[in-house]
Amino acid sequence: MPSERECIERLQPKWKVWLEDKGDYVMGPGAFEMLKSINEYGTIAKGAAAIGMSYRYVWGVVKKIEKELGVKLLETSKGGSAGGGSSTITETGLLLLNRYSSILAAFEKASLKI
Amino acid sequence: MPSERECIERLQPKWKVWLEDKGDYVMGPGAFEMLKSINEYGTIAKGAAAIGMSYRYVWGVVKKIEKELGVKLLETSKGGSAGGGSSTITETGLLLLNRYSSILAAFEKASLKI
Repeated sequence: MPSERECIERLQPKWKVWLEDKGDYVMGPGAFEMLKSINEYGTIAKGAAAIGMSYRYVWGVVKKIEKELGVKLLETSKGGSAGGGSSTITETGLLLLNRYSSILAAFEKASLKI
Repeated sequence: MPSERECIERLQPKWKVWLEDKGDYVMGPGAFEMLKSINEYGTIAKGAAAIGMSYRYVWGVVKKIEKELGVKLLETSKGGSAGGGSSTITETGLLLLNRYSSILAAFEKASLKI
């Protein structure tokens, strides 16, 4: 039987992180996973499929963030004669991904010292 | 007009922290505010009023956490001849408050370095 102190000390901290622009929600864990997956798989279609989401939904989320921030996160190029386009993440998209990643990493590190 | 880089860098990180016990939600920011207020004001009634909540609601939240953890967070004593009881936070309740506070402080500190 754990002591009352042990009951408190064994509690696990959990957290959700999101980014705001002047008080408006911009991006949370969902959109972060999407951008990461698009960056990894090279197209919205493959990136969305890899995390079990529809192309349409992921596209909509990315467009909403782009509109909110007034920046472009993806550079879409049409397929050539072989067909199939690709969506490369822009430099700004990478900055956004990295900003969110570094916050997650800092919190993870902080949580280990508590 | 800010550059795209500035648009990303000015984004503010926000977060929500909660505690879990073996995967079960135990306490988040709401209950933390309640316990802190009870601790500050000395009774559930005054603590609840100070954060614009009902006695009944706050009492229910505290009881739920106590049941979840199998510990007592508040020590209630009945009023004497002058009337009016008080709810003192237990040592375990204080441990819980402090654990949550120190996580918040660690995250706040980590967020300043990002």
